[in-house]
Amino acid sequence: MNRILFEPDEIDDAGVARVRDARAAHIVNVLHGTVGLTLKTGEVNGLLGTGEITAIASDGEVAVQVRHTDAPLAPWVDLILAPPRPRVMKRLLPQLATLGVGRLILVGAQKVEKDFWGATLLKEAIYRPLLIDGLMQGAVASRVPEILVRRNFRTFVQDELDALAGASARRIVAHPYADGGARAAEPPRGDGADGPLVLAVGPEGGWTEAEVALLEAKGFVRRSLGPRILRTDTATVALLARLVPAD
Amino acid sequence: MNRILFEPDEIDDAGVARVRDARAAHIVNVLHGTVGLTLKTGEVNGLLGTGEITAIASDGEVAVQVRHTDAPLAPWVDLILAPPRPRVMKRLLPQLATLGVGRLILVGAQKVEKDFWGATLLKEAIYRPLLIDGLMQGAVASRVPEILVRRNFRTFVQDELDALAGASARRIVAHPYADGGARAAEPPRGDGADGPLVLAVGPEGGWTEAEVALLEAKGFVRRSLGPRILRTDTATVALLARLVPAD
Repeated sequence: MNRILFEPDEIDDAGVARVRDARAAHIVNVLHGTVGLTLKTGEVNGLLGTGEITAIASDGEVAVQVRHTDAPLAPWVDLILAPPRPRVMKRLLPQLATLGVGRLILVGAQKVEKDFWGATLLKEAIYRPLLIDGLMQGAVASRVPEILVRRNFRTFVQDELDALAGASARRIVAHPYADGGARAAEPPRGDGADGPLVLAVGPEGGWTEAEVALLEAKGFVRRSLGPRILRTDTATVALLARLVPAD
Repeated sequence: MNRILFEPDEIDDAGVARVRDARAAHIVNVLHGTVGLTLKTGEVNGLLGTGEITAIASDGEVAVQVRHTDAPLAPWVDLILAPPRPRVMKRLLPQLATLGVGRLILVGAQKVEKDFWGATLLKEAIYRPLLIDGLMQGAVASRVPEILVRRNFRTFVQDELDALAGASARRIVAHPYADGGARAAEPPRGDGADGPLVLAVGPEGGWTEAEVALLEAKGFVRRSLGPRILRTDTATVALLARLVPAD
């Protein structure tokens, strides 16, 4: 936690936030917080700033007088993801929030394991704390990535993608077996700064050729990270890292 | 497992490998292996090639006639890492092997939690299978990353680094708070192809200025991934992804 984020309803009219969960424990045990100490704070989906500890109760509740005036960094990429195993997904979610993903669209590609869709991870009560952890790690953003589930991949790509992503967004599909296809010229680094980006990352077994063709018909260009076959979470972080704008 | 790797002593003089562990289960359950099926295989620290399943015993033992003639991809980067929490370290290790790390030097930076050094993860019997899993994921390399532990950071950097890394290797230190210091010009992408690389990634709390100065005195240039503060594993994967040669 490099910045403590509070939910709007945790901050009272006087601008005092009160927590007694993992954030309170972090403030006391890791940051060695005492009354008067100033922390980096912010409001979930709101502004960032600082907060001064005004009280630490014997039951562990920490009170922080906050002053939030700074605009957070905005998300810069939407991620279309064929969900990996829940275990992999769970460790990927906070990293996506840290790295600046705005929307995560989980799609039913052919090689997605069917039993994934029943995972508890798809419940907002489960994934939201993971995403907020990622925002608190990154320390410069506050907007919780939105998660959409679209099990019919073809319908999503053909009928919904353009309206959702904006017609002007650049589109890249990760495809480890790209050698047979048209390989996109390597764009300059940090090119995410040029405008919104949509990145599509397939399942562990890869996209089918039909799926890649469907994306290519919608303007996606293939992108490979070389001959190594990367796990979904590695590949996603690696591609986001290569595309992230310098800010 | 995109390639099954066998230890040299698992392959008999006739070139038949026999396994009954997670690899056997993967061959049967995930690859739907049957007698006659050809798999991508290889030898740990040796050549790569293919193997044909010759028997699947009722006790789960799988026998594979292997033919290994292809050179694996060589590692391209040594990583100096201030170890993160064992939980983070455990999920990072396979990814390092996948991404082509040759040597992993775990160093005692000031902000490394002291209790890490007792972690069972530092035992070869624990970390080696994780590294081999990463090689089997990547499917193009077979050399198990070597792990060195150097708790005295200053002594390692001043007295041992040059001999270990080679004087000509390019040297980059990840430093999220680089704005105050001399920021390295962004090298072209895939520049790892220009020669060996040494990358230094600090602890969760960051390098101290003294530690960065020590590295800079040895020719390391600072590299930041922008304003977001990344977890150690995210930062390491992100930096490796930005530096990996195209092969």
